[in-house]
Formats: sequence, structure tokens, C-alpha cells
Amino acid sequence: MKVSVKVPATTANLGPGFDCLGLALPIYNEITVEETVMPGSGIEINIIEDTETYDILSIPKDENNIAYKAIELLYNFIGQSVSDIKITIKTNIPVARGLGSSASVIVGGLMAANKLLGNPADDAVLLSIASEVEGHPDNVTPAMFGGFCLASMEDDGSVVYSKISWPDDWKLTVIIPDYELDTMIARSVLPESIPVKDSAFNIRKCAMLVDSVYRHDSEMMKKCLKDKLHQPYRERLIKGFKELTEFLENKDDILGCVISGAGPSILVISEKNGFEKVENEVVNLFTELNVNCDIRTLNIENEGTKVI
Amino acid sequence: MKVSVKVPATTANLGPGFDCLGLALPIYNEITVEETVMPGSGIEINIIEDTETYDILSIPKDENNIAYKAIELLYNFIGQSVSDIKITIKTNIPVARGLGSSASVIVGGLMAANKLLGNPADDAVLLSIASEVEGHPDNVTPAMFGGFCLASMEDDGSVVYSKISWPDDWKLTVIIPDYELDTMIARSVLPESIPVKDSAFNIRKCAMLVDSVYRHDSEMMKKCLKDKLHQPYRERLIKGFKELTEFLENKDDILGCVISGAGPSILVISEKNGFEKVENEVVNLFTELNVNCDIRTLNIENEGTKVI
Repeated sequence: MKVSVKVPATTANLGPGFDCLGLALPIYNEITVEETVMPGSGIEINIIEDTETYDILSIPKDENNIAYKAIELLYNFIGQSVSDIKITIKTNIPVARGLGSSASVIVGGLMAANKLLGNPADDAVLLSIASEVEGHPDNVTPAMFGGFCLASMEDDGSVVYSKISWPDDWKLTVIIPDYELDTMIARSVLPESIPVKDSAFNIRKCAMLVDSVYRHDSEMMKKCLKDKLHQPYRERLIKGFKELTEFLENKDDILGCVISGAGPSILVISEKNGFEKVENEVVNLFTELNVNCDIRTLNIENEGTKVI
Repeated sequence: MKVSVKVPATTANLGPGFDCLGLALPIYNEITVEETVMPGSGIEINIIEDTETYDILSIPKDENNIAYKAIELLYNFIGQSVSDIKITIKTNIPVARGLGSSASVIVGGLMAANKLLGNPADDAVLLSIASEVEGHPDNVTPAMFGGFCLASMEDDGSVVYSKISWPDDWKLTVIIPDYELDTMIARSVLPESIPVKDSAFNIRKCAMLVDSVYRHDSEMMKKCLKDKLHQPYRERLIKGFKELTEFLENKDDILGCVISGAGPSILVISEKNGFEKVENEVVNLFTELNVNCDIRTLNIENEGTKVI
């Protein structure tokens, strides 16, 4: 018996929403979990590259694989231990680009294994395990449920979240460069503390961003896609981010430009074909900086993980 | 000619919403602005105490009066200077208790003077001037417009805000002690910087608080009325806050307990008569701590400033 699921990519740390705001994108990994035919055969992890664009050699194929780690926690939750299991990961989400490839693998492994086991864990348990393995809930929540999600990991390890309806006409452009950025490195450049005034800035901008989404208020949204918690520190790691932000400032129908997750991808939010109108100039900007990019303009993915 | 307005009290810094979330309470100051009969008579400021509970001697009666300062900025905005003016402040909002008495006087002076001048300034200008004089927009915004407001002062001095419908059955209890706490002192105990993890905590809790109000979600609201930016540092200045927070933790129908503004008043939010059920015990708690309090359970004030 085997179960396959399809899990969307995600973009997290949305503007001021460090570790709490994320949304799902229609780029998918497929994860299959199956009991191995031969008992005692142990763990088998296969990676299949669906596109040839992205290096996936860095994905571990042993007990250090994050899908396996998540599945192990699920088995522990129901009082069992994993013995013989085969996990197949068909990747289409670029790795180490700030697009939630690790979250998709965690969520996919967990949800497929849960179904294989007869659904012993509910969504709350799966979300809590996934967030524990990932370290934060803002990728795994939209990866599971789709859409735009506000999520918080509580002290007891549970995750509370809200899926908020995203305006249909707010388009998402991801600019995916051809170099990787390890999340560990991107985390290491953050300071221990930030000024209270910068903290107060992010607090109000994040609350206003949620308010803008509820009210479909593009003008307020333009004022909210700002951050003083992580972007100023990571900017130097993200080639072209500063130049692109300056170029897009005050362009018609561009709502904002933020680092996707911990980078190096960049997310631009626009309406009324705002991005298409400047796409050629953006391509030139990155060409001049000698950065090869894959640029994709997408709608939000509203379904989340599905069994296929 | 004279104009009188009635301005509500406000509670700001609501939980995680430092400098951005506030709401209006049905306790009012009345501010009257009039041209003095005798030209050349200068500034005249009268304070009338409507209740005998609160010491108002600390309110300046000269150019340092904040209502006057705000009115002066309004005159400057229209290219005039204030010459002969009489301001009468009938106070009912306790002074220096974290209930927006200064915001009410600023907003009242401004709105009355604006009407006296034939309404040369629109709400955006008045809100910007009021926030400039007050230093932050989270009291003056609900003082002007009533209700629950999310507000942000932008770099250019403008204020963007959103008034979000507050659930009717979420009651507000203010516990007003008989001692004053100067906002300057309450600000002075705040650190320059806070840990990134505390900042991330407030960011997500503030966004979730706004989400809880939109969705009228009491269970999520209970998880949101928390703060790591100012309350841990001010707690020692607010007699009984720590004890009350511990006492109310997990009590039925209590949504949370926060410092009102910079204190020393405390705000408790409850539903279904949650506060009434524990009121006697709360009275005993403060009596044991030798703190005299005035405790009032109120509905939100939704109208804001009105000409009377």
C-alpha cells in the first residue's frame, strides 16, 4: 500500500510577518510514502528531479531526511516506531531558494504517512509536528491548507492559525535566482536584538497587512510590505533585492517587493498586470547584475496538500 | 462664537499592539474653544473638574497646554497665528492614568478650533497634527473616530488607520487606581532594544489580535492579549497587574488583561459577564495590596468626538 500527495511551494516571512505570515504558490512537490515489500529492509528514500533546473544532491537520503524525521514523530505520537518505509520525493520546488521546499517535504511525508496509517492524527497534530520539524509554522501552514495564512506556534507546541481570503487580483511574482542560500546562513546574519522602534514598526505593519487583506485595500497594502526585522540584515545576501526595491518604488500597480522566506528568491505582489508592465526592465536589471533568474507570475494556490 | 466638543477616553497599546492599537471608552472630556471678547487678551485656559476624584492641577494653563499646542499647529497649517483664544477643559477622564486624557484634550482642542475656523483642515490633517503632538496615533485615532482602531504614523507624518468593528459582547473593564503614573516615567523604563524572538512574538500576536476581532474569535483573542515589548518592563510600576493577570488566567469568559496605555490603569476584556463573576475577588485582591481602585465595566464607545 502506498499514498502519494501533492504539496504546494510557499513563500513565508511575508514583509513584516516574520515567522508568521505565508502563502501557497502553484508549484508542487509530490511525496509518496509506502510500506516496503520486504520486512527488515529499513528506510529507503528516493529523490526524483522533476525539472533539471535545481540541484537536489543536498537532500539527505537517510534518517536525516526531514520527511523521515516528521514521519518518525508521527509514528511516535501513535506509540509506534518506523521500521520499513520507502519515501519517494518528486521535486519541482526549487531547493534552498526560500520557496518552502523543506516545508513541502515535511508536510507531504507527514500527510501521506498519516493516511497510510489510517489517519490517526488530526490536522492540529500534523501541523504541530510539521512546525516542530521546520522550526516555524509560516511555511508548513499554507503548505497544508493553501492560501494566505497567519500562524503562531504557541509555547505548548500547538499552532494556531487563520486562513484569510486573498484578493484574486493580487498576483504573485517570484524571482528565483540560480544560486542557493542556506537558511542556516540566512538566519545567522540576524541580530539577537532589534531596536524597540523597529519592533514597533513591524508590529503595526504586520497588523495592517492583515487588515489590508481583509479589506482588499491595495493602497494600505503598499504601505505594509515593509520590514525592519530581517530584510535590512539579509539584504546583502540577496543579489538585486535592494536595486529591485528601489526600481519598483512608486511604480503603478506594484503593491510591494519582499524577500521570499529567508531568500534568495524575491516576491513581488502586484495588481492589474502591474508586474508585466515592468518585467522587461526587471529582467535587464538582473542581467546587468549578472544574476540568472527564473521569473514566474502566479496566482495564489488555495487548495493546499492533496492526495493524488 | 464658541464651539464645544465631547471627546471619549481611550485605552491604547492594546496587548501586543504597542503604539498602534487603541479603542474608545464612554468616559468623556468636554473642550470648548472660543474667540475671546477682548482682542489682545491673549490665551486663557480654564480647567473645570467634572468629578472630584482626580487631581488636575498638573494640567498647564499656558502655552505649554497640549490643547493649545495642537491649536497653534492648526493655525500654522492655515498660515495664521493664534492670538486671542479661550480654551475650557471640563475633565471627567482621569489624568495620568493611561486612559488618554491628554489625547482627548488634544483632539478636542483641535476639532473645536477647526470648526471655529470654518473647517479648513480635513480629518487626515487633524489626525496628523494630533499624533504629532501626542507622539503616537493609538490614542488620538479612537478619540477622534471612536471604536477599535489600528493606526500607524508614517515617516512623512501622515497617519493611516483602520476602524475595525468590535464585537458587541466583548466588554471592557477598566481598573483605575488612585495614583498617577507619568507617561514619561513609564516610557523611561523601556529598553532601547528587545530580543528578536520577543519582537516576533508581538508581531504575530498583534496580527492575530486584529484577525480575532475581524472573526469575532474569542478563543484566539485569549491567546493574543499578551505582550513582550512593554508590559514586562512596566509591570513593576503597575501595582497588582502581575497578581491580577495570574488570577484571571484561565478564568471562564475572561479574554485577557493588559496595561491600559502606559498604565497605571488596567484593562480586562471579557464576554458573557465574565468580569462580573470575578469582580468581588478582584476587589479583594486590590484591597489586600492596599490599592484603591475605581472599577468600571463599559461597552466600547463607537462615535468618537462630537460637537455638542
